[in-house]
Amino acid sequence: MQSLFKTIALVSRQNTPTIAEPLKHLTQMLAEAGARVLVDRESALEHGLAGIDVVERADIGKVADLVIVLGGDGTMLGVARLVAPYRTPMIGVNQGRLGFMTDVPLGDMEAQIGQMLKGAFAPEERILLEATVEREGKVIASALAFNDVVFNRGSSGSMIEFEVFIDRRFVYSQRSDGLIVSTPTGSTAYALASGGPIMHPSLPAIALVPICPQSLSNRPIVINDDCEVEFVLTRSQDARVYFDAQSDCEMHELDRVRIRRYRNTLRILHPIGYDYYDTLRAKLHWGARLH
Amino acid sequence: MQSLFKTIALVSRQNTPTIAEPLKHLTQMLAEAGARVLVDRESALEHGLAGIDVVERADIGKVADLVIVLGGDGTMLGVARLVAPYRTPMIGVNQGRLGFMTDVPLGDMEAQIGQMLKGAFAPEERILLEATVEREGKVIASALAFNDVVFNRGSSGSMIEFEVFIDRRFVYSQRSDGLIVSTPTGSTAYALASGGPIMHPSLPAIALVPICPQSLSNRPIVINDDCEVEFVLTRSQDARVYFDAQSDCEMHELDRVRIRRYRNTLRILHPIGYDYYDTLRAKLHWGARLH
Amino acid sequence: MQSLFKTIALVSRQNTPTIAEPLKHLTQMLAEAGARVLVDRESALEHGLAGIDVVERADIGKVADLVIVLGGDGTMLGVARLVAPYRTPMIGVNQGRLGFMTDVPLGDMEAQIGQMLKGAFAPEERILLEATVEREGKVIASALAFNDVVFNRGSSGSMIEFEVFIDRRFVYSQRSDGLIVSTPTGSTAYALASGGPIMHPSLPAIALVPICPQSLSNRPIVINDDCEVEFVLTRSQDARVYFDAQSDCEMHELDRVRIRRYRNTLRILHPIGYDYYDTLRAKLHWGARLH
Amino acid sequence: MQSLFKTIALVSRQNTPTIAEPLKHLTQMLAEAGARVLVDRESALEHGLAGIDVVERADIGKVADLVIVLGGDGTMLGVARLVAPYRTPMIGVNQGRLGFMTDVPLGDMEAQIGQMLKGAFAPEERILLEATVEREGKVIASALAFNDVVFNRGSSGSMIEFEVFIDRRFVYSQRSDGLIVSTPTGSTAYALASGGPIMHPSLPAIALVPICPQSLSNRPIVINDDCEVEFVLTRSQDARVYFDAQSDCEMHELDRVRIRRYRNTLRILHPIGYDYYDTLRAKLHWGARLH
Repeated sequence: MQSLFKTIALVSRQNTPTIAEPLKHLTQMLAEAGARVLVDRESALEHGLAGIDVVERADIGKVADLVIVLGGDGTMLGVARLVAPYRTPMIGVNQGRLGFMTDVPLGDMEAQIGQMLKGAFAPEERILLEATVEREGKVIASALAFNDVVFNRGSSGSMIEFEVFIDRRFVYSQRSDGLIVSTPTGSTAYALASGGPIMHPSLPAIALVPICPQSLSNRPIVINDDCEVEFVLTRSQDARVYFDAQSDCEMHELDRVRIRRYRNTLRILHPIGYDYYDTLRAKLHWGARLH
Repeated sequence: MQSLFKTIALVSRQNTPTIAEPLKHLTQMLAEAGARVLVDRESALEHGLAGIDVVERADIGKVADLVIVLGGDGTMLGVARLVAPYRTPMIGVNQGRLGFMTDVPLGDMEAQIGQMLKGAFAPEERILLEATVEREGKVIASALAFNDVVFNRGSSGSMIEFEVFIDRRFVYSQRSDGLIVSTPTGSTAYALASGGPIMHPSLPAIALVPICPQSLSNRPIVINDDCEVEFVLTRSQDARVYFDAQSDCEMHELDRVRIRRYRNTLRILHPIGYDYYDTLRAKLHWGARLH
Repeated sequence: MQSLFKTIALVSRQNTPTIAEPLKHLTQMLAEAGARVLVDRESALEHGLAGIDVVERADIGKVADLVIVLGGDGTMLGVARLVAPYRTPMIGVNQGRLGFMTDVPLGDMEAQIGQMLKGAFAPEERILLEATVEREGKVIASALAFNDVVFNRGSSGSMIEFEVFIDRRFVYSQRSDGLIVSTPTGSTAYALASGGPIMHPSLPAIALVPICPQSLSNRPIVINDDCEVEFVLTRSQDARVYFDAQSDCEMHELDRVRIRRYRNTLRILHPIGYDYYDTLRAKLHWGARLH
Repeated sequence: MQSLFKTIALVSRQNTPTIAEPLKHLTQMLAEAGARVLVDRESALEHGLAGIDVVERADIGKVADLVIVLGGDGTMLGVARLVAPYRTPMIGVNQGRLGFMTDVPLGDMEAQIGQMLKGAFAPEERILLEATVEREGKVIASALAFNDVVFNRGSSGSMIEFEVFIDRRFVYSQRSDGLIVSTPTGSTAYALASGGPIMHPSLPAIALVPICPQSLSNRPIVINDDCEVEFVLTRSQDARVYFDAQSDCEMHELDRVRIRRYRNTLRILHPIGYDYYDTLRAKLHWGARLH
């Protein structure tokens, strides 16, 4: 077998001792397929892998032609933001519980990945968001988000107040616990818990989902993904903005968050036969076919 | 003044005596602008208009270069399905209460329409749905819908059961009161009452919104508007499918409804300065700007 | 063993051939415990039971000291309304899928019912509703409901409009698909699918749950069960009122439905150790204890 | 005129200069009616009232026979928890915007309060909650709440995990943003924004309303107000419990919050003719009577 991908980087979920064996097998299998294999430094350290090439997580996108994640959607999320600038494709292997993005089962990993290295895969492009936080006209923070940018009251017991603009047009002022600006990928995560709709990954859309809005008519809105969304904090004691729930930035009154679709999409490779609705049905315990 | 539109047809809301005067004024004003003016036969009869050219409602799209509706969104809806095959643009005049589509206020009608006849308008394209009902492989009914195709239990006290497919892929079987397949235009109508998201009119999307689903995880899904949606009735005593709540078709078990985006869009002309979010904010009593 | 209950009536779910064997075993076991056993005529006919005493379903409450239902919550519901006037207690046996009321598993039926006949049971009182439909001041229909009284548009494609009064005080006029007036028992049935809260069976309460209300602020309301609820149909083409989804009555404009708690409660006997929250958790797939 | 209430304490909303005049008028009017009038020290200071008796806010319940609040529901909320231990009745005067509890309009204050001092009022009893926070078996905090006890992730970007018990019975483990335990009074506040039902103030009930639960079947539950509710934090980085959003306590893993109905009710006096549904309709913009 000959791998289409010359350099393949591996990342595994943290604090998961059982992943050590599969990680070693995969390393060996990929090497036998002629690929240069790099293991993320943290993963290598955790599992005591010796005699292999390691790579800093931050450099993965730059050096690899393919990234394989062993873990769950959470691990995938963290890596996605790192590789997106380099358009490096990703494959997700799950350890038992099917994920929305990690859809190769660990038990069948070698067979399925073997096929994929030969080019038998279904590629999928997913958007990310790029957010900047501005204070008095200066950018004080910026980040990518693959699921969502969440604007939220922090530890204060009170709701926050803010104004929302789409393409510089005023949409509304809102009093609520916060606002979720979500990609289709994020639509099955926090946005769903907050009452947002499910969006198919291929939909060129962004959803604005209010969190516990005081006004009962403040419902989720879905807009084109080429829109620019802005919100301005007008009243709060301790608000924050979170990027994929993995990093965050404190907000002051009149701080402004500006959100656009990131210029690159993220490329996920699925096994042939992948069907988004199958995953959705399994994850949400939806009814199977009746007859 | 010279109208860009040669032949203009007028339609007014039924059972609305107060519309007679404005209808006459508008007829005169359009004639003075050099347009040939046709009035829908029902509207002419209701308001006793004499000495004017009438047109059958069904022929409006064929003969007119522009249709002006005096009424509300409901009247607009009924006309939209008739003119869509001919791509005839529409202008909506409301009688006091702002509509999502009827956004020219009656009081300012002459000035605003005068400007629009000269070409000062903001055009907007909106999708429609085309649905066919099949029984034992034969099409037994078909219709256009501008808001939604609604699948619903009729007078039976029990929920119905059905299966949903998107692009021939099985999505789920559901037990519920029914399902709304909605355009962005319909997203602020029945779909909103049933828990669906608001979709911007320019979003190339269709929403599937379940009505009182027994399974609490059956949430609204938003998909690309080039998808084909199908549902098959698997169990019911009296189900029906409704098109814009204006016509309907009885369903038997195993009947299948197939829904696609209609090949033409509907063209609505708005006054310059039109802003969808302004309308949304007004209709849903959302918070105005705070500072 | 000696049964505390002298006369015991049995009712089984329709169209369920597999219930024949358990039904015979139970008949025999109860007879051996010294009880007089009666089988509902429909159940006896369906399963070809010979040489046993049969009873008309309508008379069950009058003649029996205990009713045992083999089936699901639906069967229980139908019998509840018949026995409530006589305060006859009920036991529910389920055929595999735990029910909210049918909580004795078929496989363990003989042991558990044996204990219950000796007095080892946890009794629970649940309210019913009594509804009357009035037209021009005259009662044209009346019925009991154990789950809910549902006011609904029938086969019309349009919403209905109605006014709601509680204890003769005007609450609101509403435009929607309908209204569910639910007991705590009904709170986990249709009312839940329509956005209503779960109410513990012992709560002395009635919930009013709107079905797809046009106004997004028309939210479920929970009131004391000694209140009288009335609604008056103000606009509709084909509305109906349903009692437990098992019987219904056509409504005309200005017809009035008046709903009160029924004077008797229904008594359900549970095995010792019964816990409502266990059932809820199992039925709704809620999280089990983490540690 | 002779006041039924000997000692009357006044409290006004903070940072509201326009309340100074009405406060002085009321002071004078009450004195003329023969009552001893005390003004809360903070209110007296803010408005520069001289020559009047002041009282510490914390002592109001102890010394007064009646408390009159000039402000909104928020001011009422803060005072309610102080006077509840003494069963001192309260009257709420609003400054323009009708409140759920502050239902005497400022403009008609003198006439309406004049009547009420003579005994013409509609009294209403409302429950409060009493909560204790326990760490390793020791009570580390306790508080009263008139609206709600809210368990919430603080400034962490992640959901919290906790277990809920009712009357020592395990209900569920939940992963969410938090949980609201609400009185009927609180049911129109934060609990409503989070999807909870409206509960009539006379309903002897407590609602448990999850905030953005990950599991879509974790719906609001309404239980008897004589139940004890407990929740135990099982996983969190920064959770807090809030009492009426006015005070809070940091939570560590395995901390336990225990909530019971407080032994005293709070007594609110309304003008004759008060109707809860009128208030509800006005506050939620519900439909008025149609005919």
